[in-house]
Amino acid sequence: MAKKETFAISPLRESDFPGWYQQVIKAADLAENSPVRGCMVIKPWGYGLWENLQAQLDKRIKETGHENAYFPLFIPLSFLEKEAKHVEGFAKECAVVTHHRLEEKDGKLIPTGELEEPLIVRPTSETIIGESFSKWVNSYRDLPLLINQWANVVRWEMRPRVFLRTAEFLWQEGHTVHSTQEEAFEETIKMLGVYKEFAENVLALPVIAGEKSEGERFPGASNTFTIEAMMQDGKALQAGTSHYLGQNFAKGSNIQFSNKNGNMEYAYTTSWGVSTRLIGGMIMVHGDDDGMRVPPRVAPKHLVLLPITPGKNQEKDDQVLDQVQKLAVELRSCSFDGQPIRVHIDKRDRGGGEKNWEWIKKGIPLRVELGPRDLDSGTVMVARRDKGHRDKLKMPFDELKEKVSTLLEEIQENYFGQAKEFRDQNLETGLKTREEFESYFKKTDGRVGFVRAKWCEDPETEEELKKLKVSVRCLPEDQSGTVGTCILTGKEAKTDAIFARSY
Amino acid sequence: MAKKETFAISPLRESDFPGWYQQVIKAADLAENSPVRGCMVIKPWGYGLWENLQAQLDKRIKETGHENAYFPLFIPLSFLEKEAKHVEGFAKECAVVTHHRLEEKDGKLIPTGELEEPLIVRPTSETIIGESFSKWVNSYRDLPLLINQWANVVRWEMRPRVFLRTAEFLWQEGHTVHSTQEEAFEETIKMLGVYKEFAENVLALPVIAGEKSEGERFPGASNTFTIEAMMQDGKALQAGTSHYLGQNFAKGSNIQFSNKNGNMEYAYTTSWGVSTRLIGGMIMVHGDDDGMRVPPRVAPKHLVLLPITPGKNQEKDDQVLDQVQKLAVELRSCSFDGQPIRVHIDKRDRGGGEKNWEWIKKGIPLRVELGPRDLDSGTVMVARRDKGHRDKLKMPFDELKEKVSTLLEEIQENYFGQAKEFRDQNLETGLKTREEFESYFKKTDGRVGFVRAKWCEDPETEEELKKLKVSVRCLPEDQSGTVGTCILTGKEAKTDAIFARSY
Repeated sequence: MAKKETFAISPLRESDFPGWYQQVIKAADLAENSPVRGCMVIKPWGYGLWENLQAQLDKRIKETGHENAYFPLFIPLSFLEKEAKHVEGFAKECAVVTHHRLEEKDGKLIPTGELEEPLIVRPTSETIIGESFSKWVNSYRDLPLLINQWANVVRWEMRPRVFLRTAEFLWQEGHTVHSTQEEAFEETIKMLGVYKEFAENVLALPVIAGEKSEGERFPGASNTFTIEAMMQDGKALQAGTSHYLGQNFAKGSNIQFSNKNGNMEYAYTTSWGVSTRLIGGMIMVHGDDDGMRVPPRVAPKHLVLLPITPGKNQEKDDQVLDQVQKLAVELRSCSFDGQPIRVHIDKRDRGGGEKNWEWIKKGIPLRVELGPRDLDSGTVMVARRDKGHRDKLKMPFDELKEKVSTLLEEIQENYFGQAKEFRDQNLETGLKTREEFESYFKKTDGRVGFVRAKWCEDPETEEELKKLKVSVRCLPEDQSGTVGTCILTGKEAKTDAIFARSY
Repeated sequence: MAKKETFAISPLRESDFPGWYQQVIKAADLAENSPVRGCMVIKPWGYGLWENLQAQLDKRIKETGHENAYFPLFIPLSFLEKEAKHVEGFAKECAVVTHHRLEEKDGKLIPTGELEEPLIVRPTSETIIGESFSKWVNSYRDLPLLINQWANVVRWEMRPRVFLRTAEFLWQEGHTVHSTQEEAFEETIKMLGVYKEFAENVLALPVIAGEKSEGERFPGASNTFTIEAMMQDGKALQAGTSHYLGQNFAKGSNIQFSNKNGNMEYAYTTSWGVSTRLIGGMIMVHGDDDGMRVPPRVAPKHLVLLPITPGKNQEKDDQVLDQVQKLAVELRSCSFDGQPIRVHIDKRDRGGGEKNWEWIKKGIPLRVELGPRDLDSGTVMVARRDKGHRDKLKMPFDELKEKVSTLLEEIQENYFGQAKEFRDQNLETGLKTREEFESYFKKTDGRVGFVRAKWCEDPETEEELKKLKVSVRCLPEDQSGTVGTCILTGKEAKTDAIFARSY
């Protein structure tokens, strides 16, 4: 009889997905809750993911002509009020700075030095950046203005969850100004495309790009576009958004320019952002019951070298360590994705099994063991994180150097392929009636995923969906153009929509 | 008679240094004041400097074994109180978050949802990081713990000044934990050395490294070390600090470990940081009366290509633009300092003189003009920012490609050499008496710089120095070891000290 398979993470994905998610974060040492309500501590392995993600996205943002800048953390309360829907959307969950000193009174420190106008810790920066833009933009010659900011933002979340919904999170926010509607709209779509390409090629996350319905728009936007990814519990994660803001914020912040005829016009603006939430998405798409699986392109380390030094023969052990050191140098001179291979040597004085499992849980793409016997044969044992943990391949040193880049490429492609297969298998396109729709989302056996169906775009139906805890995730960009009947109302409908539960 | 030289910046350095500083920041488009009191907006050219500075320092921080992580923006008030001197030092100038909602009342938004415990926006993160460290550290096997964070911090400044003293600024803060005093002290000194090497080799800022006197220590530190740079007005800028914290913060945050004998011990910690203030330092050290001069190693762009298209002959103009494009591609394939040359093409429809002066003011290292006549001769006109603005060199295309890296290297070295010469010329080492010392700092003709003299280290003398607006900048690491008399008290003194006015 085959040995019963055991796993490193408990609970398993199938039995308790949210519990599994928390345990993966802990087991992979990615992040932890902090004593500050709703704020997280991003630990080195998690922050390393963010740094690589950031580097690769930053490159794309710059290649499309944007420049980075930095704007204040604080927004005067009155600024937030410049766009009516905007303040409505963000006033309910914000950190408010009211004082600028602490003084001792009766042995207790209390806030003093009350500010004349309270400051809001930025939940997003349209209004404070708009203030600068109104000064920077004078003539059509100053346009387009293409700016990006990497920053921390704060939204007071009532039900925080590490990486997915935290009071403070890290993100980038692009803010651009254009002289025409067409150009601003084009920019919005262009950045949506950058996000899709980046999510798929770098993070190995297959996403559906499309427009948000009215009820899901960014507060103050004319149109919001999104990329939506399917998690392994079938729920959707909004992984990035790009907003066409029309003249709404330009009017609020008075961003005007003199056009070629010398007349003053309000400009057209956009904004777009992705955040540390993407790390949560990678965990929920790529993780398995043994922990995290990190896509090689953003892995803090590509490969760990695990020397096996039994401690019986000091000379042999030293030779193993020497050989590992040499191998590290040679591997670092190889490259993957245009960068040197990131190699870690784990020399810690702990058991081989313990160390091996630590790296499995962290999801490093390649584990390479080298022990005394391998010295004679000139080989190493190579284990890939996309294969079973017992599945190790004996390989001559030189072959590893030759193949390391290909191995990483294969792992990257496998993760994407597996995620895409899962997504496609759980994308239901055959539902015809509201009854079928409701029973799909109420079913208790089998997985509830995404439904793609015709929708009449009636805002009232969005309210009704809330009862099912379902929402319109997007109107996908690959509209079929056919006419059919709305799955919710039975009315004639042209629009294809994606419906799902979501994070 | 020679034509009177005119300059791009007014006022000149000699007549009004603070006024000149503000104008350089404006002319070089580095940053601007924001409507949020004391906060600055870092514009793309200024932020580009920060990004390059960050990349180069981050590399050094990682090469010395540190990993990046990220900790919360907010610190619960009670945490700040964990170290008595620390809270005293930071409570007087901090942003206090007291509410987490806004609600409309009588048509006005007011803060609601009062927090049970106010949160402080981090002025520095010893206490909040210490909380995590107390959980991460259990055994001597967990040590050393070597962590760095890139973040924004807030200190409520009463007299803010762009880059030098702003309410919000960007920085890195290293935080490390060690099992012995010796190792923690070694780490403190090692990072001081990293800062010195980085300031000198990357930012071209000659600095004096040394220990701070008791009166200038970081609140809560056992020892504070500093690198001090001389600005062109002779004042000192504290450009980076490294603190040995002893067990002070470990006791406050309860960072204990079980040692090799199984006994619990408080750990020894360090912290060290540099900030966007370094950009202010580069302006005040390298800038001249024509604006900023950017050290090539941190220049957002190394070289600007300025096509001259007179508009009389479209075909010729197109050829010029073509040639410029080709040259850009070829120059980008050359490298400086291990990185591709950063080339910008300025095709804007503005006058050649106007564009040229813009780039002079921004301080780009190399300006390269190419016009219709240069096409025939196969040459370009090359101007270096470290030479006079009329000083242009005709150079064949190929020669520029061959020499570009050397030219940048020369400019980098020149900036450092000039700054070092200035510093050495304004370092007064010949003063013998208190009278001479006082008249040196009171003199109205000639520049007041740094004084190096013997000091008895009596804390009372530090108070007296305040009347002269002078402070002990540091006890330089290259102590002579000789015995002499204290320049302030006449008592016997062994310690060499650097005295100066400061920012």
